[in-house]
Order: sequence, then C-alpha cells, then structure tokens
Amino acid sequence: MTIKVVIIGGGSSYTPEIIEGFIERYHNVRITEIVLVDIPTGKAKLETIASLAKRMVKKSQLPIRISYTFHRREALIGADFVTTQIRVGGLEARIKDERIPLKHGFVGQETNGAGGIFKAFRTIPILLNIASDMHELCPDAWLINFTNPAGIVTEAVIKHSPHKRVIGVCNIPFNMKSGIAKMFDCDVRDIEIEFVGMNHFIFGKTVWLHGENVTDEALKRLVEYNQSYSPANIVSLGWSKPFIESLKMVPNPYHQYYFQTKEVLEKDLQAFQDIGTRAEVVQQVEINLFETYQDTELMEKPKELEQRGGAYYSDAACNLIESIYTNKQDIQTVNTFNNGAISDLKDDDVIEVNAVITSEGPRPLTIGSLPNSIKGLITKMKNMEHLVIQAATTGDYNQAYLALLMNPLVANEKKAKTLLDELLEAHKDYLPQFNLKEEKIL
Amino acid sequence: MTIKVVIIGGGSSYTPEIIEGFIERYHNVRITEIVLVDIPTGKAKLETIASLAKRMVKKSQLPIRISYTFHRREALIGADFVTTQIRVGGLEARIKDERIPLKHGFVGQETNGAGGIFKAFRTIPILLNIASDMHELCPDAWLINFTNPAGIVTEAVIKHSPHKRVIGVCNIPFNMKSGIAKMFDCDVRDIEIEFVGMNHFIFGKTVWLHGENVTDEALKRLVEYNQSYSPANIVSLGWSKPFIESLKMVPNPYHQYYFQTKEVLEKDLQAFQDIGTRAEVVQQVEINLFETYQDTELMEKPKELEQRGGAYYSDAACNLIESIYTNKQDIQTVNTFNNGAISDLKDDDVIEVNAVITSEGPRPLTIGSLPNSIKGLITKMKNMEHLVIQAATTGDYNQAYLALLMNPLVANEKKAKTLLDELLEAHKDYLPQFNLKEEKIL
Amino acid sequence: MTIKVVIIGGGSSYTPEIIEGFIERYHNVRITEIVLVDIPTGKAKLETIASLAKRMVKKSQLPIRISYTFHRREALIGADFVTTQIRVGGLEARIKDERIPLKHGFVGQETNGAGGIFKAFRTIPILLNIASDMHELCPDAWLINFTNPAGIVTEAVIKHSPHKRVIGVCNIPFNMKSGIAKMFDCDVRDIEIEFVGMNHFIFGKTVWLHGENVTDEALKRLVEYNQSYSPANIVSLGWSKPFIESLKMVPNPYHQYYFQTKEVLEKDLQAFQDIGTRAEVVQQVEINLFETYQDTELMEKPKELEQRGGAYYSDAACNLIESIYTNKQDIQTVNTFNNGAISDLKDDDVIEVNAVITSEGPRPLTIGSLPNSIKGLITKMKNMEHLVIQAATTGDYNQAYLALLMNPLVANEKKAKTLLDELLEAHKDYLPQFNLKEEKIL
Amino acid sequence: MTIKVVIIGGGSSYTPEIIEGFIERYHNVRITEIVLVDIPTGKAKLETIASLAKRMVKKSQLPIRISYTFHRREALIGADFVTTQIRVGGLEARIKDERIPLKHGFVGQETNGAGGIFKAFRTIPILLNIASDMHELCPDAWLINFTNPAGIVTEAVIKHSPHKRVIGVCNIPFNMKSGIAKMFDCDVRDIEIEFVGMNHFIFGKTVWLHGENVTDEALKRLVEYNQSYSPANIVSLGWSKPFIESLKMVPNPYHQYYFQTKEVLEKDLQAFQDIGTRAEVVQQVEINLFETYQDTELMEKPKELEQRGGAYYSDAACNLIESIYTNKQDIQTVNTFNNGAISDLKDDDVIEVNAVITSEGPRPLTIGSLPNSIKGLITKMKNMEHLVIQAATTGDYNQAYLALLMNPLVANEKKAKTLLDELLEAHKDYLPQFNLKEEKIL
Repeated sequence: MTIKVVIIGGGSSYTPEIIEGFIERYHNVRITEIVLVDIPTGKAKLETIASLAKRMVKKSQLPIRISYTFHRREALIGADFVTTQIRVGGLEARIKDERIPLKHGFVGQETNGAGGIFKAFRTIPILLNIASDMHELCPDAWLINFTNPAGIVTEAVIKHSPHKRVIGVCNIPFNMKSGIAKMFDCDVRDIEIEFVGMNHFIFGKTVWLHGENVTDEALKRLVEYNQSYSPANIVSLGWSKPFIESLKMVPNPYHQYYFQTKEVLEKDLQAFQDIGTRAEVVQQVEINLFETYQDTELMEKPKELEQRGGAYYSDAACNLIESIYTNKQDIQTVNTFNNGAISDLKDDDVIEVNAVITSEGPRPLTIGSLPNSIKGLITKMKNMEHLVIQAATTGDYNQAYLALLMNPLVANEKKAKTLLDELLEAHKDYLPQFNLKEEKIL
Repeated sequence: MTIKVVIIGGGSSYTPEIIEGFIERYHNVRITEIVLVDIPTGKAKLETIASLAKRMVKKSQLPIRISYTFHRREALIGADFVTTQIRVGGLEARIKDERIPLKHGFVGQETNGAGGIFKAFRTIPILLNIASDMHELCPDAWLINFTNPAGIVTEAVIKHSPHKRVIGVCNIPFNMKSGIAKMFDCDVRDIEIEFVGMNHFIFGKTVWLHGENVTDEALKRLVEYNQSYSPANIVSLGWSKPFIESLKMVPNPYHQYYFQTKEVLEKDLQAFQDIGTRAEVVQQVEINLFETYQDTELMEKPKELEQRGGAYYSDAACNLIESIYTNKQDIQTVNTFNNGAISDLKDDDVIEVNAVITSEGPRPLTIGSLPNSIKGLITKMKNMEHLVIQAATTGDYNQAYLALLMNPLVANEKKAKTLLDELLEAHKDYLPQFNLKEEKIL
Repeated sequence: MTIKVVIIGGGSSYTPEIIEGFIERYHNVRITEIVLVDIPTGKAKLETIASLAKRMVKKSQLPIRISYTFHRREALIGADFVTTQIRVGGLEARIKDERIPLKHGFVGQETNGAGGIFKAFRTIPILLNIASDMHELCPDAWLINFTNPAGIVTEAVIKHSPHKRVIGVCNIPFNMKSGIAKMFDCDVRDIEIEFVGMNHFIFGKTVWLHGENVTDEALKRLVEYNQSYSPANIVSLGWSKPFIESLKMVPNPYHQYYFQTKEVLEKDLQAFQDIGTRAEVVQQVEINLFETYQDTELMEKPKELEQRGGAYYSDAACNLIESIYTNKQDIQTVNTFNNGAISDLKDDDVIEVNAVITSEGPRPLTIGSLPNSIKGLITKMKNMEHLVIQAATTGDYNQAYLALLMNPLVANEKKAKTLLDELLEAHKDYLPQFNLKEEKIL
Repeated sequence: MTIKVVIIGGGSSYTPEIIEGFIERYHNVRITEIVLVDIPTGKAKLETIASLAKRMVKKSQLPIRISYTFHRREALIGADFVTTQIRVGGLEARIKDERIPLKHGFVGQETNGAGGIFKAFRTIPILLNIASDMHELCPDAWLINFTNPAGIVTEAVIKHSPHKRVIGVCNIPFNMKSGIAKMFDCDVRDIEIEFVGMNHFIFGKTVWLHGENVTDEALKRLVEYNQSYSPANIVSLGWSKPFIESLKMVPNPYHQYYFQTKEVLEKDLQAFQDIGTRAEVVQQVEINLFETYQDTELMEKPKELEQRGGAYYSDAACNLIESIYTNKQDIQTVNTFNNGAISDLKDDDVIEVNAVITSEGPRPLTIGSLPNSIKGLITKMKNMEHLVIQAATTGDYNQAYLALLMNPLVANEKKAKTLLDELLEAHKDYLPQFNLKEEKIL
C-alpha cells in the first residue's frame, strides 16, 4: 500500500526536515509519493528544494518518488496527507507586520498582536481554498497545518470549510518538553507535560519524568535556571520567582509578550535599530540556507536548519502521520477541537492539547476546568481569536477593529484604528476579503 | 519492589478469578502480598477461598503470600491497591430487592429500579468507611470498586470521602465488545468501542474493527443477530430494527429494563413463579461453586465460575492495576470523573468512559456533546443517581422518596412511598443512616 | 392610532371570550379592527362567531370593525397582533390521538404522550406557514399562539421561522394561581407564583400572597385540600403527602400523567367505556355552545363558555397585547426563549416563565439552577420536545420514532413503532412533511 | 409600622443626600429611626452630620428620630435596612492607591487597577464583619452597599458571609441614563438602558426612549456629542467613531482606563503634577463641604454636594429601600447574583443588572449571551474579580500577586510584585488578613 503526501509551500526552507522525517520513518509508514507544491513566484526555491529532496531520497535508496508542481488541484488528487507551510506575502509581509506596530509603540510580532492578526487575515482565505479543494479532490486526506498562527488558522479552517480532517501542529510543545528535559538532564522522551490552552498561549500544568509527577521540582528549577529555558527563536527574559510560584505552571516563551510587554518592546525596539526586525534577520538566514541547499554534494538535511527557529515542526507532522496511518493510539500534542477537554471553552473551540491519535484523528484527553489563575486570560484570548476569524472570513472592517481592540497587545481605541488602517493598506494585495475601496479606511 | 493488594469481600466466589489474574500478570506486576478481608459471618467461605488461593499460588510456584483476616484496618496498612467486591446483607438482601418491587408490579433488579437504589443505600456507607480508612492508613493506594451499582457507588465515594483515588470497574464494556466480536467472528481484542453514558446505562457510539470504523455494519448485524447478542447473566429479548436504526448506537443489555419494561416484567414474573428470582438462582449456583472450591485437588479457577455472570470483572481490575503501576497509558473503560468528557454533564459526575490509564489514574478521552437521541435520558439518569447518593449519604426520607419517584422504573407518586417504606423496613439492619424510628415510615 | 388584530381560527368557540376581552380593554388599547380568519370547511362556525362578535361590539357601542375571511394572507396585511387558536384536523383528529394510544394501553391525551406529539406534528407546519407569511406581510406584528402543545409549537416557530416575534400563552398558570387563591380564600390577583419549567410541565416553586412568601403554607394546604385543587378540564386524583413534601413545589394538573400514569390510565379507560374520550365529550359541548351562539338575542360571551376548559386563554392574550402595546413592564407568565432564566437549559429553549412584558416583548426573570428534584425530569422533557420539533420539521421517521421512544408516556421500543405507524396512517392527510408512501411504515 | 435604618459611615459627606431622600419618600416608606454609625476617629464629622440631619428633619416636621453612635453592634439590633458608605483608611489611603501606581507608570485609580484592588483588600474584611453581625443581630435586614469597588465588595460579602440579603448600588447607571437624556433633551426618567456587565465595567446594550428602541440613534449622537457625555467625577476623553460603531454599545466613563490607558495615564500624570491626584482634590472639596455643613442655618442638602462626584448614590439606595419595602416590582439597576441573566457567567457571579425589585430582593431580567465583542473582556474582568476576592478573604500573597498580574491595568510580571509589595507596606495597618511579617514581601 502506497501513501501520497502533498507538501504545500514545498519551496520552504523547512522542507528538507520533513523529507528526512519521511525517510527515517519509512519502515513504519510507506510514503512512496511526495509532491511539492508552490506558487510560480517561488519557482527557484522550489526547484532547489526538489533537487535536494531527490538527492536525499537517492542516498536513502528507498522507492520514494519526489515531484514538484505549481498546479495545486492536480497535486491533491489521490493525496492521503497534505501539509501546509506557507507564508502569504513572504518575509516582506512579515517585515510589515513587525515594523508597523513597532513604529506606533506596539509589539510587532509574527503570531501575536496586530502582526499575528494580519498574518491570520492573509492566511485564512488561502487555507480555506486548500481545504475546499481537498474536500472535492481527496476527501479522506488529512490536512496537517504548520502555518502560523497555527491555532487560529486551524480553527478557521475546521469551522468554516466543509473539510473537517484538519489538525494543527506547532513545535512549542516539543520545545517546552525539551527545555524541561535539559533542566532534569534527561532525554526529552522521558518528559511528559499536560498542556493547557491555545497555540502559542499554552501553559504546562503538570510535568512528569518517567511517569512520576515532578511539577513542583520543575517549577523550582525553572526559577533557578531562569533565562536558559527558551526555544531557539525567542530570546527569553527569564521569569520572576513570584510569577512561577503564583501561577504554578510552566509558561511558554510567547507569554513574555503578555507579561513583560514593556520590556519586550524595549528590547525589540533596540534590536530593530541594531539589526532590524526578526523577519529581516530571518531573511539573511534564508539566503544562507538556500546557498547551502544548492550544493549538489549535500544529500541530507544540513545542521544549519536546526537554528532556523521552526525546527521540530516537521517532526511533529511526521509523528502525526505515522500514528493516524497505523492507528497507533499514542499521545501527541495537537491543535484540534476542544470537544469538552477544557470545560470552560466550547466544544468547537480549537485548543492545543494532548490527544490520543487514532485512525480517525485526535481524541483529546480531558483537562477539566481551567485553573482560576488563567481562566480569564484564556477565555479572553479565545474570544479574541474568534473575532480574528470572524473578520478574516467576512472582511468586515468593524470586526477587524474589534479583533485589534480586544487583543491585549493593542487595547487602545484610537491606535487600534491607526494600526488597522495602515496594515490594511500595507497588505492590501493579500486581503481580497476586505473591500479596500471603502471610504472608511481612507 | 513488592505490591500489596487487599481484597475486601475476599470470601466472594469471584476471588479465584482475580487470584488467577494476578498470577498470570506476575511478570508485569509483582504482586507479592494478597490479603483477603471479610466479615466474621463469612468465615467459612473466606477460609475456603483462602485455601484455594494458596493452592493456586503453590501451583504457580510464584513468591506470592496469601493471607486472610477479619481486621480490615490492619489489612489496609501498607496496601497499594484495594479491591471491593462486597454484598451488604448478602444474597438474602438481594432477594428482597427483587421480590418487593416485583410484588407491586415493578421491575425488581439488583442494579436498576428500586432494588438498585436500595443496594446503593446499603453499600455506600460501607464503602465510605473503607475509603476513609484508606485515606488514613494507605493514602496513596487505589480503591478499585467492583461493587454494584458500581457507577453510583464510585461517585458517592469519590465525592464524599477524602480519598480520591477511586475507580469503578464493570464487566459490561468487555461483554459488549465480546458480543460484537462474536458478530464479526474476530478476537475481542480487535474490537474497540467508544462508550457513552454511565455504568449499566452506556451505549456504544462507535465501533472499530482493527482501527476501522465499522459502526454501521455492527448495527446492521445487531438487528440480524438479535437475541444472540447478550452477556451471560441477562436474557436479552432482542432489539427491534427501528430501535437500532433510530438510535444508531449499540445498547447494553440493561437497557431492556427501560425500553422493554412491560415485557421484562412479564418475563421476570413468570421466572419468579417458575424458578424464583435471579438471586435465588444465584444462591444455588454459589452453593455448587463453593462445593467445587472445597475440592483440595482443585488448583485453578474452575470453568463453572465463568457462568456465574460477573466474569471478567476481575480481569478489568487486573488490567487496571497493571496500567496504573506501570504508567502504561493504554485505553481502558472505567468509572471516573467526567471532567468534561461529556459536555452535557458536570466535571464531577462519574461516568463510564474510555480513559488513558496513567500512574496518576485515568484521564478520560473527550466525547463532546451527547447525541440528541439520548441527551435527556442520560441527564435524567445522572440526576436520579445524584438523588440516590444524596439520600444514601444523608439518610433523608424525602430525598429517598425523590430518588424512587424520579427513577423511570418507579415514577409513581403513591407506589414510590409503598416501595420505599417496605424496603426501608426490610433492610433496616443495613441502613443505619436512616432513622427508622421516625413516624413517617410507619 | 388604530390597532388591527387577526384571529386565525376565528371560528373557534373560544373567540367570544377574546372579543369580550378587547371590548373590556378598549380604554387601554384601541383595537379598532378585528379580522376572523378560518378555513372554508369551518364556514358555518365562522359565520356564527362573526355574527355574535358583531352583536357584542354593537352592544358595546365602540368603534370596532369586525370582519371575517378565508384569505389568510390578505388578512395579515397591516396586522399588529395575530392570534392562533387552530385545531388541525378538528376534534376528529383529537379523537384519534386519544383512542389509538388508549387501545394499546398508553395514555391518550391531547398535549401529552403520543397524542400530544401528533398534535405537534400536525400543527407545526401550519404555524410555520403563518409565521412565514407574517414575516413577509406584517413583519412588526406579534404572533400570540394559543395552539397546543403551546410550548412545543412556540419553540418550533420561533426557532424555525424567520419571524421571531412569537409568544405562547396558556391558561394553566392562571388556573394554578386561581387554585391557590381558593385555598387562601383570596382574590387571584393577590397571589403570585414563580413558575419553573415548560408549558404543561411547570411547577410552582414559590408562592406569594400580597408579596409575602407563603410557599410552605400553600404546600400544607395543598395536601389538606387535595383533590379540590384542579382546573376545570382535568379531573385531579389528588397528590399524596410525601409527593408534596418531597418536591416542595406546587405541581400542575398535567403532572398526573407522569406520576400517576397507571391510575390515570385506568380512569381514562373507564371513562372511555362510559362516556367516550375527552374529545368526544368536548364535541357535544361544542354543539351545545354553537347552538347558544346562534341565538340572535345573545349579545355577550355566554356563561357556558367558562366550562369549556380553555377559559382564561383569551384573557392571557388580551393582557399580553395590552402590555406590549403600552410598554407596561408588568410581569406575566408566557412561553418564550429561556435566555438564561433557567441555567440548566439552553438560551434558545422555550420555557414557560414569568417575564416583564415590554414593547419589544417578554424579558424573563432569572430563576437560576433547577431544583435537584426535577432537574433530570425537566431536561429530559425538553430533550423530548427537541426530538418532536426535529421530527415535525423534517418529517424524518427515525426522529419521530425517537420522539415517541423518549416520551416517558411511551418508552417502549416495540410499541413506539406500533403507535407511530398507526398514528401516521390515521393522520396522513395532515402530515405532508412525512413521506407516507415509504415502505417503512407499511 | 416603623422602619429603622442604620447608616454605617454616617459621618460621610454624602449622608445629607440620603437623609433628604428618606424625608422626600416618607409618604411611601415610613422610616422613623435613623442611626448614624461611625468610628471614633471620625467623631467630629459624625457630630456635624448628625446635627445637620436633625435640622433637616426638624424642617420637614416629620416624626423621624436621628441618633448617632460608635457602637455598631448595638445600632444593628432591630434594623430593617443597613447602608454602608465607608472608606477604610480615609482619603489618606486613597492617595496612596493613586500615587504608588502612578509612580511606577500605572493607572492609579480608586476602583480600577492596583488601587482598586487594594481598596477591595481593605474594605472586604470590614464588610464581612458587618454582614456577620447583621446575620446575628438583624437577620431579616437588607445590607445596601455603596462602598467601592461596589461590585467586588458585594460579591465578596454575598458569597463569603452567612448573610445573603446584600445588594450593591452605584450611581453610574443613573449617570449613563442622565447623559443619554441630555443628548435626547428629555427627562432622565424617559430613558431606559439595558446594562450588561459588572459594576464600573457595564455597557449600555439597548437604549429606549419612552419605550421605543433608540439604540442606533443614541450611538450616533454619542459620536457627535463626544466629550460632553460624562459623569461629573471623570473627565472623558471622548470616544472615537470606529469604537462606538464596532462595539454598538454605550460605554461607561470608566472604560477609558482600559481602552485609552496611555492617554489617561498621561493626563493623570499631568494632573498629578499640576493639582495632585483626585484624592487630593477631593480632600479639599470635603473640607469645604464640612464647613458648609457646620452652618447652623443650613437645613437642607447643600447644592455643592452634587458636585462631589458620588451624587445619586443615595437616590439609588432610597429607591431600593422603597421597592423592597412595598414589593413594588419596578425595575432598578443593582449589583446582585447573576443567577443566569448573563449565560456566559456563573449563577453566583455578582453583576450590575436590571432587576425587578420585590419584597424578597432583586430578580434580574435575563440578558442571554454576551455580545461576542465583549465576551472575553467581561469574563476576564470577572475572573480578575474572583482573584481579588480570593486574596482579600485569605490574605494569600500569591493570590494577591495573581490578582494584580491578571488585571489589564497591571499585567506585568515584575512590576506586579513591585506594586504589590509597596501597597502592602503602605496599607499594612488596614490589611490584617495578610501576614505582613512574612519574608516574601520584604
């Protein structure tokens, strides 16, 4: 039996990692056809990646067929799994998401604040199209979405498209386990965490080492180790003792935007002056990576990729494909319908949650009520996500305004309009759902 | 590392099965000490069982120490697991639970209707005492409760005692899988069912064969096979086609009491005249079993035990102990806090549910909202269970009346009083919580 | 300013009461145009009623214009209020609703059990048409529905039609207050009751006399007065002391079907043999009433009408129209969206509830959680109502089967099919939504 | 029949207003005994107020007895209504609540942000004592709380004391109606508003003029009138068009702290430099008021009081007393248990809501689900209030830290500690529940 995987955004610098994942797991899941799909403007990158992928397969001596195309609909026919790792508008758009808020004194970040909202606005319509095509062309296939903001995008697609086989993945849960493992000087596979919340907003509620509850010890070490607990792409400022002792949970690195807003903003403004925004740094990294990829001697994923920031995303996707395909029933952390797992949220809210992975998709493990400490915060963020999805799918100006207004990183009734209008103008080529001729935003 | 298990109600005819289970799993879970506890009036049976258990261990050549005692508190010291398989008032009390309702034209059954309510009234205070002792003497030990009505008793204990490590088990989920396996002519381990509801009131919502969703086919076969789908201890009358096709779920055998009330009642009244109530039949089975057990040549669980009706209860308990002890994280069907698994019920309602079994107990898999077809039924039954628990823990006459009144198998405002008063009088020796000197019930 | 009222089912024997109500309230609400609408087969009755209405108006010397028509859509143009008091299939259909269940040993009643379900099946499509016409022809008009089962019909219309200005009324709340007033020997206006539940299934949770909470005394008297507490059209069997003392609420007369099922059934079977079903008795009453109405000397509502059973329905409607029209903000008991009043039900469940009546319709007063005693019962009944509405609006056989199966007065998996098939056949002329050519029900 | 009212904090400058209210309503509610209670340090003020009150009564020629005392428990005996208008720590404490946050760059305000939290910390223990005394000495009396933060304090008392007859009142609802009335150039009594939310955080969801829904027009005028809509004690910065058009609700003046944080902070810092904090301004106003009060010719409430900021508080209390006493069943806006009115909140959350006022207290009118625009915000604020109450009643440092951390006006993990520690130190004489010897806060 053969499995066909379609990688949308196949020209991404991350693709070699997922190819490596498929090669390594071949004995468990026989993926024999991989189609890389991208848009014509990404032709050069796509060809580079496709060549590298073919060299990797050749070295592995496995019967995997690699191809690439710009015809997405054709590629989807017969697909078993589809992954999406796209960036609508490219790094140029990300630069705007970062620079425009920063200019007005607000956090400018890829998945949080005004920037994150606009990334959602650009991405959701494209993902809805993909899901709609899948519903028509490969209705049994699973859509595994890596595209950020992964939680919001996944909820938008699973709610607003007819295709329901959609799962979002992120590398933050792995990175959190990895960070804890470092503190306990153990293998990451020995650590389990009960995650609570949404993508990029999860907390680690319980930590186990070899099945033993070591939460208290983990929190203690977290205070001691301080800044050293952080994934590669976010510089942590460290958490204070009362924060950890009061929350009694492990924060994730993105929480700094909400609890250290002023400090992060100062740091980012400084970095902006010194080396440009994160997107501008990444642009250079990408150039270097693709130079490396073009080396025809290279037959494996290069080490440099691990420093790119999104490492382990692909790993999460590979694990998911394996468990769905084999009905493995192991526990993985995914973005899927809450379905009651957190009693305070609705059944059709998408959360990031530990779930048993079956042949029919993820079944979340129940969490119960949210801890009182974060109940308000989580429900507020989920409501903000709803406003973002509402605006992204309707193109309604007032909904978009409310999404910004209710985002804790904006929260200013006059500046919300300023940011909204500038970002709508800056990204207008990628926001067909908003009627940008309206007088309102002139 | 050694594990100590205390079996309360050790003189039960089921004990050889659990002993066999421990022997067979010894390589996975090293249970080295088993203490059988019972009350002095059960001395003869307890000694018979203890002797048989020792012969079984001897044959196995494993280093397991078997002992027995009437001193429950002493036995609990140092326990890792405690199982409860007691029958307060013995089969004599069960006969009353069956006969008194039957006499007045109501279903008389061990775990449903007025009889089930009174079994709960007798059992809950004893189990609360046991749990309270455990909290003091072996606070880390798990209480695994087999005693019926297992769902109600488990909820009463987990809510009203300080000891929270309580899990209820039942053999119905296994029997339902086994029945389906027979229809598919496959091994029971190849079948999985998503169960929805409470103990003795669960439905099978989805059926998988080797990980493939075969629910529709299972329902089709269920209509065709009709009466042959039934566990040993309940004679099924078969389900009609519209019932199965409308519900779109697999009923459990006890549902006949609610959907075939009149027919079951007629059958039971006939049986009552012909061969006595079920308790009276069981009494004879028990006499035969204990005669067999006394055979000093017998060194294993005799085949006859499998026909006793409660078979596989012990199996469920053994599996549970193994998975908790080894943090196995497999999926088992247990009675535990809902915790959001069924969105329509409260977090602290006990349900019978598929759960991942960890070293810290079961984590239910989410189910989401109840199907509309049974939403009212399930919430009504859960509410009735709350009334039973309320009455059992307070001894309040009015609450007891409401429990009977709101039970669909009673539901008559005048007869509820008749049944209540006769059963309170009949069982007064085992109902210390009710002040039976009150004028009310004269 | 003039107000136009359209009375659909204007040929009903109840119409003189509502005409009297409008005449009496003329100084508060200037209803100047009343159009009586009916179907051509009711021509004779409609003309009799219209003539009587004209004589009543003439005697009053008020400038009210009475007219009648068979053209419903024309009548609706310009309407401010529309009342519906129709009986699809007439008393002949009611006779079948009563006789068919009785024949099989089940309660046969107009608004409860299988009969009530079929009355809903026949009525809902017609009411949906009326509401749809109103949405088009008089979108600001209020639909005041008297037609039984009033709660279910109101929920169906308010949920499934585009017209949301729909309120259901019933005389049971008034009758309960009136019954309590008799026990306290006071005027009915001095009594207030906090009602909890759904139409024909409400309980009186608190009773006030002149604003003072007298619930305990009312319950005490209820036990003492026993059978004498009952509205005209239902013979009460009286409630036992433990029932009242345990519930701690005032039941309504229809509760006898659920808590005295066996006794009611025996009584009804006896009455059936002696004098026919209730519908057959009513048929004779109607003949007598219309003879009275034809007397051209008669210029007012005759006393006999008060014995008809539905008395005070019209009174409730008149009060409602006055309060909506004048934004009176008084408290009336109506069928409307729960909107949170009972925390255990959904916002869009229709309940019978005390509400402040404003110019924009009723705003329920909050009740909070249901008492534990009836929580299961109420949620079960509401779920059953959902199944009825689902079946009535889709014509789905399986949904109809589930509605009967989950009705506590049927609850038998084989007999549910028998009743369903016979009633579908008996009423097939009035059930266009069910495709009655299907093999299923042959 | 005589009514006794006890005014705790009787030496407040607001007292003449409530005395005037009682005099004016004497024909409806015969309040014949008024006891002013205060603490010994407020002796001079209390005597001044008592003298003025006596002169006011004398002028009215009504048989009202005025007295004053420092013995609260004695005063409570026989009370029918108790009002609380206290300021624990006096204006000196308020100055600290304002200055300390401002110093660190945070909003310093009496009822919002860190200052509001500490006002709650100081007030809740005192109110709990009063309620506890009432439960013992005048169990049927109603506690009418004016003390800010009125919503939080009311929820703390109603949840944590045995005395449940507690209602919170505020003048903001009246001021909002009054502001709208000005825009429509009508009497405030012609305006009704449906309020949604919590005290100092309510929105006006619907506006009626003479019973007609004029919400859209009100919002239009709100944008046009801009800054002129504001109660006396808060300088409004005006709301932008997109804010009003997106929210589709009337904000209250306190919302500026949350949606114009930066601007308010700048304004307050400027004011702080120019004229001191609000408390310092008020201190001078109070000195002038008491000079006026001492004028023995003064026999009525002086006009100057209306500019004090809290005007109409007393009016709200008088209306409430009248409606409870007479079971008037009119609609007033009060702080009471949600009880289902807002479906998204819990039954025992206290909200500010329109309620029918009966002899047994307020019965809220249902609101249903919160608008999506503010759902997250409201649930977040309510959760923050829970954290405040939890900290205030336990004195737990971590809970207090969480309350500050989760307050949108703090929300900084390091600064939350700074503010907490400085405010705990500053107010330590009034925070007995916090063990301020602990090393933590050194």
